Amino acid sequence: MSGLPGIEDIRSAAQQISGQAVRTPLLENDALNERVGGRILIKPECLQRTGSFKFRGAYNRLSRIDEADRHKGVVAFSSGNHAQGVALAAKLLGMPVTIVMPSDAPRAKAEGVKRMGGEIVSYDRATGDREAISQELVEKTGGVLVPSYDDRFIIAGQGTIGLEMAEDLDGLGMKPDQLVCCTGGGGLIAGTGIAIRHRYPDCALWAAEPEGFDDYRRSLAAGERVENVRRSGSIQDAIITPTPGRLTFEINRHQLTGGVTASDDDTLDAIAFIWKHLKLVAEPGGATAFATLLNGKLDTRDKTTIVLITGGNVDPAIFRQALERI
Amino acid sequence: MSGLPGIEDIRSAAQQISGQAVRTPLLENDALNERVGGRILIKPECLQRTGSFKFRGAYNRLSRIDEADRHKGVVAFSSGNHAQGVALAAKLLGMPVTIVMPSDAPRAKAEGVKRMGGEIVSYDRATGDREAISQELVEKTGGVLVPSYDDRFIIAGQGTIGLEMAEDLDGLGMKPDQLVCCTGGGGLIAGTGIAIRHRYPDCALWAAEPEGFDDYRRSLAAGERVENVRRSGSIQDAIITPTPGRLTFEINRHQLTGGVTASDDDTLDAIAFIWKHLKLVAEPGGATAFATLLNGKLDTRDKTTIVLITGGNVDPAIFRQALERI
Repeated sequence: MSGLPGIEDIRSAAQQISGQAVRTPLLENDALNERVGGRILIKPECLQRTGSFKFRGAYNRLSRIDEADRHKGVVAFSSGNHAQGVALAAKLLGMPVTIVMPSDAPRAKAEGVKRMGGEIVSYDRATGDREAISQELVEKTGGVLVPSYDDRFIIAGQGTIGLEMAEDLDGLGMKPDQLVCCTGGGGLIAGTGIAIRHRYPDCALWAAEPEGFDDYRRSLAAGERVENVRRSGSIQDAIITPTPGRLTFEINRHQLTGGVTASDDDTLDAIAFIWKHLKLVAEPGGATAFATLLNGKLDTRDKTTIVLITGGNVDPAIFRQALERI
Repeated sequence: MSGLPGIEDIRSAAQQISGQAVRTPLLENDALNERVGGRILIKPECLQRTGSFKFRGAYNRLSRIDEADRHKGVVAFSSGNHAQGVALAAKLLGMPVTIVMPSDAPRAKAEGVKRMGGEIVSYDRATGDREAISQELVEKTGGVLVPSYDDRFIIAGQGTIGLEMAEDLDGLGMKPDQLVCCTGGGGLIAGTGIAIRHRYPDCALWAAEPEGFDDYRRSLAAGERVENVRRSGSIQDAIITPTPGRLTFEINRHQLTGGVTASDDDTLDAIAFIWKHLKLVAEPGGATAFATLLNGKLDTRDKTTIVLITGGNVDPAIFRQALERI
């Protein structure tokens, strides 16, 4: 598929996923507003089917595959959330699915894939080449490789989040000053950014990344895609990618304002705060953007800020660690 | 205020709380449907402001007090969720507030009241008379006593939940067979039941209560209000009441189908399931209805069931206990 996705692709995706994806609300929390001295609107995509936003893009992509080709199935590589999104979309559409997953992926995510009937092929995150393994599987099955971000339909599917936000903000008569979003490959902020900017051209867009894995922040500053030195070693596993996506960076280099970061420790604080005040379950890589509100990296004073909690697939041991901070 | 509340009172309450209360979504979960063999629609009132549905009724009640009388303030007795709802409503309306709270109330709830500027008067749940203490405070201040359920405006406020459910169900083209709701004094199921039955006259309504504190179930069977033997000793503290409310029972004796129960142990299982699959935080007394889906007390097979998660104000120690079951 050539060309960059636009607002029409996102509107089409919204129709495609309607009745399949959860229409998540936009929440506001008194304790949070008080803490940061501004108005924060929270989009809780941990409430999405499979526990993360990834189902939106996956369903939009898979539902475009010709009926005649569906029996050949799909292949995806993912640390877990995209995997679960693809597995459920495939199940709903009656397609076989194989997931190439790092061996250190959280147990909750691997279990989720298996529960939905997906087959898992493991690899070592530090030494294995997930793209090569996936390509081999595709050649063997004749199925379709479903990338986790560098795809027009995937980006458009994630962008439906921005449409919903704009609808709810209009209902509240509010205008956002800025949006901060957990960023791995950059598909979510690319799609959401397109939809938000279409409605609010002046809204600033911030990519939130794990400290030490801020490839997007550095790429934006450099004007070209740069790589992370390390490939593993953070509990924010969901958003660790080697480098920004090719297609997503083409979009994001023009629309993003910049990058902000949060340490693993910051995300544990954020998970605890989200548990205590919002009554939601976030995973570390789904709480990165939220953590930048609490750690002061994002200036929220007297501003209206939208923040995404992108996923909630966290292992109990890590969650217990966060609860100890309360 | 005389007479029983009706659908018009609930519609009026919906206008009154609009823009103040969170318009919570109606969620569906694949793992839950699979587990119980039916379709379950979940109303997550733990996402409501102050972490429970109680804010709805409280705001509806307090906002009807004459501006000229507001400086005298309000008094409420509550194990915690009503307390927080009243405290926030009072804060938003600029009214002083005193809460009469049992000394064994969860720390999270007492903290919430204090954070919102409320004053707390403690009493012993086994020996103290909360109504007498509250009456004394009212006489001293000239303020208004805000009951937690036996009040037309409170019941109508909680009933807005039923209006929202009906709106969402219509949007999905679905019709519920039954609804199950955590029940203490019975205000929530009274109001919600009125709204749901107005739209779906055949929908069965079940009161869910803690095992050993099933005064509503037994009162419905007896045709008159009976009392619980014990007044404390369950982690489902939020819905332990001595006996059904006078006004709520007048409504519920005609509209409820019956009662179902869950043990403390069942609610810990439910909290764990809700954490793992729904990514929500429930408190024991907010998970009682949900627990009756999992413990088999409610027959859900091939039915469409609505369940309320009524609150999420749980102490970390109890939550950790639940997480150990995963």
